[in-house]
Amino acid sequence: MILIGVDLGGTNIKSVLLGDDGRVLQQASLPSHAEGGPRAVIEQVHRSIETLLADGGVDRARVEGIGVGVPGSIDFTRGLVLHPPNLPGWEEVPLESHLRARWGVAVAVDNDANCAALGEAHHGAGRGIAHFIGVTLGTGVGSGIILNGRIWHGQHGYGGELGHTSIDLNGPECGCGGSGCVEAYIGNRFMIARALPVIAHHPDSALYRQATRDPASLTPRDIAEAAAAGDALAHEILFDAGSMLGAAIASAANLLDITTFIIGGGVAAAGKPLFDGIISSANRRVLKVHRGTLSILPAALGNDAGMLGAASLLG
Amino acid sequence: MILIGVDLGGTNIKSVLLGDDGRVLQQASLPSHAEGGPRAVIEQVHRSIETLLADGGVDRARVEGIGVGVPGSIDFTRGLVLHPPNLPGWEEVPLESHLRARWGVAVAVDNDANCAALGEAHHGAGRGIAHFIGVTLGTGVGSGIILNGRIWHGQHGYGGELGHTSIDLNGPECGCGGSGCVEAYIGNRFMIARALPVIAHHPDSALYRQATRDPASLTPRDIAEAAAAGDALAHEILFDAGSMLGAAIASAANLLDITTFIIGGGVAAAGKPLFDGIISSANRRVLKVHRGTLSILPAALGNDAGMLGAASLLG
Repeated sequence: MILIGVDLGGTNIKSVLLGDDGRVLQQASLPSHAEGGPRAVIEQVHRSIETLLADGGVDRARVEGIGVGVPGSIDFTRGLVLHPPNLPGWEEVPLESHLRARWGVAVAVDNDANCAALGEAHHGAGRGIAHFIGVTLGTGVGSGIILNGRIWHGQHGYGGELGHTSIDLNGPECGCGGSGCVEAYIGNRFMIARALPVIAHHPDSALYRQATRDPASLTPRDIAEAAAAGDALAHEILFDAGSMLGAAIASAANLLDITTFIIGGGVAAAGKPLFDGIISSANRRVLKVHRGTLSILPAALGNDAGMLGAASLLG
Repeated sequence: MILIGVDLGGTNIKSVLLGDDGRVLQQASLPSHAEGGPRAVIEQVHRSIETLLADGGVDRARVEGIGVGVPGSIDFTRGLVLHPPNLPGWEEVPLESHLRARWGVAVAVDNDANCAALGEAHHGAGRGIAHFIGVTLGTGVGSGIILNGRIWHGQHGYGGELGHTSIDLNGPECGCGGSGCVEAYIGNRFMIARALPVIAHHPDSALYRQATRDPASLTPRDIAEAAAAGDALAHEILFDAGSMLGAAIASAANLLDITTFIIGGGVAAAGKPLFDGIISSANRRVLKVHRGTLSILPAALGNDAGMLGAASLLG
């Protein structure tokens, strides 16, 4: 059985051809052409699939299914992608039926964070783990819940929003309208907004020059690099971000008795200080029965998690 | 099929005999004799069952199973009740095998909050609802998660602790060792401790005399009664408690896309102000997709939920 996984992002479309044994036969990456609206983007998805098949020398008749991860919510009942924020012009797009009409095979569409979690479950850090929550740190704090090896969608298909766990009911307003969501502390933009005034008080930090002269250019990656180079303040900022995620993780672990969390995305590459912050905070906050049993793992697949998980939607 | 459900509490053992159609054939309530340790309590459980059968005129050969809810955690792998805080002397008690040995039928033991949720699922406010979280307000904030009509136990059997969702990572210390757990605001003792200084500043409140002259006697029930009689401050205290529970509920709804919450227990009887607080807070905090879809229902079974759910463990 040959399966195709597509990770449809706001900038690029990453896709993969998976063979019988789950082996990667071919990969492709094309620009999304998001500015062209749904029609242009869907055309690029078709082109990605054609590219995969041509480059992999695989006849399309051998393809049994196409899975797609999209950066938005899905209406599973009506088979619609619902206004993904990074795909302009998409309101309610029947992506599934577009692809089925064009390729004549089974098609499944799911949220990108769910696909990333499923990718880790089948091919990455989550192999052999029945229940876990996969967290992707980036602009937002995406997450997907795997229960009994499958994506938990919840009642309407919107399940998995660990990023919108409030860690302070009177905390800062989040983009979602809630207060104190963990995303409102550690989503890229929020993390930088919190870090800048702190850095401005530390002329000894390697980040000081950039943060005071060109604050708009500062990214979590800069902080991660400074921390890796030994900057104490950068280390503290990441540890602090980890502590906040740890608070949300502790509440989720208490609620669900899920004790494995797989952390990926840009900031997660920061590594040790972030993970140290998560682990110490979560272990301190969690119920006694869970203390010391938490397993906070780095994601293993990087940016490939989404397309691999998308292919696994049909597995 | 006749089933027996037993709700083993620190003070009383409530039990029920359920007929083929789930109809209640007989009920009993006996003191737990908790001060006598496990042996005395287990003897009372046996006596409860004997009483049910005798009073119901049912031959023990017709009983197909016994379910028991206990106020503590369960080690399902080893079949042990683990140190329930309100049953002195219980460390690790193989209650299941004691009952199986004595009665020769299928026995299932689960946590009391899980049983209460399952009781509401089969016989109460949760009938026909696939996924919900049942919350029992009392000394603690107990809860049980029903997914696809069944109790969600999680990885180790400790799932369902909504009361230990932190709503403020820097909030007051909870009995569990965590910070800002919703239980640390609205568990009976905590609610009273928060209310007393507020009441002391409101000589116009109906609660003022009791709170200043005999503070140790003030209970959530007193507050509920004052609110029902029109006391504005009592109303505010309950609304505020509801708001806090609403914050934890919003995070759980975002995480799981579960939008039904069934609220029972002593304080829940306070009714409107508490529910108004929950509903307005949760709807304000939840992701846009869930706003207006939340269903916050009063539990329907009162103190009977536990024993009815216990019987349903084998259903």
